[in-house]
Amino acid sequence: MQLQLNRRSSVPLYRQLAGELREQIVSGALAEGYRLPPERELAKRLEVNRTTVLQAYQQLKDEGFIASKVGKGTFVLPQTVTGDLQPATDDIEPTIIRPPWSVLFSDYSNRFTYHDIAVANRAQNGQSLIDFATGSPNPADIPDDLLRSVSLEAFASHEFDGQPESPIEGFPELRELLAEHMRSRGVHCNARNVMVLSGSEQGIDLCVRAFINPGDCVLVEQSTFFPALQAFRSADARIVGVPVDAYGMRTDLLEGYCARFHPKFIYTIPTFQNPTGSTMPAARRKELIDVARRYQCLIIEDDAYGELWYGGVDTANSDANRPVPLKGMENAGYVMYLSTFSKTVTSGLRTGWIVADPHVIGRLAALRRMVDQHTSTSSQRICLELLKEGRIAEHVKTLTVAYQQRRDTAVAALEHYATAGMTWNVPEGGYYIWVTLPEGVRSLEVLDRCRAKGVTFMPGSVFDVDETDDSHIRLNMVHPDAADIERGIRMICESIAQAS
Amino acid sequence: MQLQLNRRSSVPLYRQLAGELREQIVSGALAEGYRLPPERELAKRLEVNRTTVLQAYQQLKDEGFIASKVGKGTFVLPQTVTGDLQPATDDIEPTIIRPPWSVLFSDYSNRFTYHDIAVANRAQNGQSLIDFATGSPNPADIPDDLLRSVSLEAFASHEFDGQPESPIEGFPELRELLAEHMRSRGVHCNARNVMVLSGSEQGIDLCVRAFINPGDCVLVEQSTFFPALQAFRSADARIVGVPVDAYGMRTDLLEGYCARFHPKFIYTIPTFQNPTGSTMPAARRKELIDVARRYQCLIIEDDAYGELWYGGVDTANSDANRPVPLKGMENAGYVMYLSTFSKTVTSGLRTGWIVADPHVIGRLAALRRMVDQHTSTSSQRICLELLKEGRIAEHVKTLTVAYQQRRDTAVAALEHYATAGMTWNVPEGGYYIWVTLPEGVRSLEVLDRCRAKGVTFMPGSVFDVDETDDSHIRLNMVHPDAADIERGIRMICESIAQAS
Repeated sequence: MQLQLNRRSSVPLYRQLAGELREQIVSGALAEGYRLPPERELAKRLEVNRTTVLQAYQQLKDEGFIASKVGKGTFVLPQTVTGDLQPATDDIEPTIIRPPWSVLFSDYSNRFTYHDIAVANRAQNGQSLIDFATGSPNPADIPDDLLRSVSLEAFASHEFDGQPESPIEGFPELRELLAEHMRSRGVHCNARNVMVLSGSEQGIDLCVRAFINPGDCVLVEQSTFFPALQAFRSADARIVGVPVDAYGMRTDLLEGYCARFHPKFIYTIPTFQNPTGSTMPAARRKELIDVARRYQCLIIEDDAYGELWYGGVDTANSDANRPVPLKGMENAGYVMYLSTFSKTVTSGLRTGWIVADPHVIGRLAALRRMVDQHTSTSSQRICLELLKEGRIAEHVKTLTVAYQQRRDTAVAALEHYATAGMTWNVPEGGYYIWVTLPEGVRSLEVLDRCRAKGVTFMPGSVFDVDETDDSHIRLNMVHPDAADIERGIRMICESIAQAS
Repeated sequence: MQLQLNRRSSVPLYRQLAGELREQIVSGALAEGYRLPPERELAKRLEVNRTTVLQAYQQLKDEGFIASKVGKGTFVLPQTVTGDLQPATDDIEPTIIRPPWSVLFSDYSNRFTYHDIAVANRAQNGQSLIDFATGSPNPADIPDDLLRSVSLEAFASHEFDGQPESPIEGFPELRELLAEHMRSRGVHCNARNVMVLSGSEQGIDLCVRAFINPGDCVLVEQSTFFPALQAFRSADARIVGVPVDAYGMRTDLLEGYCARFHPKFIYTIPTFQNPTGSTMPAARRKELIDVARRYQCLIIEDDAYGELWYGGVDTANSDANRPVPLKGMENAGYVMYLSTFSKTVTSGLRTGWIVADPHVIGRLAALRRMVDQHTSTSSQRICLELLKEGRIAEHVKTLTVAYQQRRDTAVAALEHYATAGMTWNVPEGGYYIWVTLPEGVRSLEVLDRCRAKGVTFMPGSVFDVDETDDSHIRLNMVHPDAADIERGIRMICESIAQAS
């Protein structure tokens, strides 16, 4: 609260103070329920007599803007909406007429679903919760020292002086390094196939703008990344969920879905899927690509977790076993590949990338001109440094060693504490264990019990196309501190038993 | 071009090389027209015999992938599209079937207008052009030393260690500093009225998503910021241009437009407008707000240039003359205010902000969850440092002193070299002089002549709702080096005279 009094003015100080406060209340700067400072404290801060504050508060009470509750303080009252535009007197502000928000908001934004966000946020704010819900790394896993050293290196250099902005597609050096990285993952591409994004989610949003007409169909794994569902809904797409099993999308059913629904594209997370943790075997990947090509259906491959392959931890394990991205198995341009630094470093960088046909890159860049123009140059510079000399590769190695251990701890705990009827996958990488609850147990009831105990997760409904799935829960097994994993899973299993 | 040969393989090196190149051609990594390295050079780079490269090239020529032109080199040929999915032989890749892009792209993205972007880019790439076209600061005006020092300060600190991400609305400290800054501009608000954006354009895009249903009307100044027009078109809004004069939007006509078109919102740049450079006087601002309120029509106030007020240079000039934002004259929530660091520091930061009713902030934040989640934390940290201790205010002061001089130089040059029938405004701040051409002179013809001479600007059609205006040109008078302004304007005036 900022207050300015003019001691040279002929207007009495208490009137000035009342006026300032009134203005902030009607402007919404001081909201309903805002607790005003105690009179003595405010008088001291403004260097005025306490009576001045008392008189100002009294005037605002008389006008109905504030009220005091004994022992609790002085609070801002709700502002009444009336049809009267004329001020009642010259020195009282007119009663405010707020815009009719619900009519003004777009139909789309009015039907936007918030529940999932609320769930995630509640988990983040709960300080003492063991958090299996949040879909980002544990803060302790963020490589602060690496980030600090590469940032200092990036910003100490004069290399970027006077560089006012970046090309829409990103700095050429960064695109080149990303292309090189993708080639090491088995994807043939060069810099002009790569565009730097403000997170991989932006790539989904841009693809929606570039490809989806209202009513177009999008196929997704039945249970998928929910912001993708929201992006498809934003363009009025028809979203159809394809059944999944422990090996990801049931590609044997895909031809039928394509023939029936003529999808514009298939959105898939083939590797360490969110939320099911599953990984598509090579044969399914091939089948997916074949069907998509035959039906001239594009594929958006979301590979947010692909770097986090636990198989690389055991050096006896050949890299040949590592899942190859769909983009590496197809060369006609049907696959648009997305990835990000959010899961391996920190989502704070807001930097991801897309690998696609140059024709698509050009179209996305044109659309992006009106969105955010390009990714923050400071984030790009940091990522550039991270990719140099394999710095990030080293960090990812450390991370996957730790993650594999947490997975083993989590799976061991599940095996030890699970109640009858619970099943789950054992992921080969990434973040997620997907637990199927015993028959008749509802995920939201389990969540309520878990929150009361001090542990949280994401209920399956959040990832469900129809938002009705209540028999699954998603555990980000790598998010809690390693020491808390066993205890957290014990509490979850107890809650499930109690809900049975 | 990245090539990897395996010397231990039983496959001959020339076959490996041909295979690698073929794969990159069919994947589109090497595009039609790509010039392959000369044989000798590639042989040296790969440390193979020159015959190996010759044989590989010959095989690809036989297969129709590449061709040589005498004295010009070896080029990638266009890839034929056929209906045949089966490879002709086992060791030649099948002819590739590319996706039917024009059918797959959305109607919206197919009708998206690119010309303006091309114009801007051509100007940016022309190294030797005197550039009055680009809408960003001269690279020499970017405060490199300040940016370096605040960045090093921001990243050396441990304050943000383990901070994986930012709240969607931005770091609370940054929102607080922005609110404080806005209060100094006469806008009553606090942190909860502020959301940090990835550039002010993102605010336009988010408001479109939050408010526009297909067919909704948006009123704009007839000649306005073109990415805003594109954002409105993306949601299928009807865009109606309100006439302007030297004092901005003709608010005397506004009631008629509101009664006729029932606009959802009015998009306006009231201060140092882009492209006309005009500033709305207080009386028009008041009228604009009054009409908008009466018609329950929202206002998006784009204040990208508002910081750059030349009036502050002369210290005898009272701050009372400084234009007060619309947001400072209205308190019911009808005005949504946008600004940015792009025009005062560098657009590379991709950081702007919106000031609006907390109800609107909440809605925009929910929508943004699926776009880019939040502004890059590195950019936010840099902006936080910039706002501390008035560092940015000092830089803006230096900038406006220089800009005012450039404006004076530009106006003097116009007065000296103008041909009969030319008129222009004298802006009180910001970037733009808006020149009306003599009767019958077409802006695109002038632009062609100017480019040939080595000077460039933006033609009025780019900013026109109907893209037909050919009688105006926009000069960003602060973009060229000060020493080039007079010469550039002389060349423009000569071109106009020649086109008359």
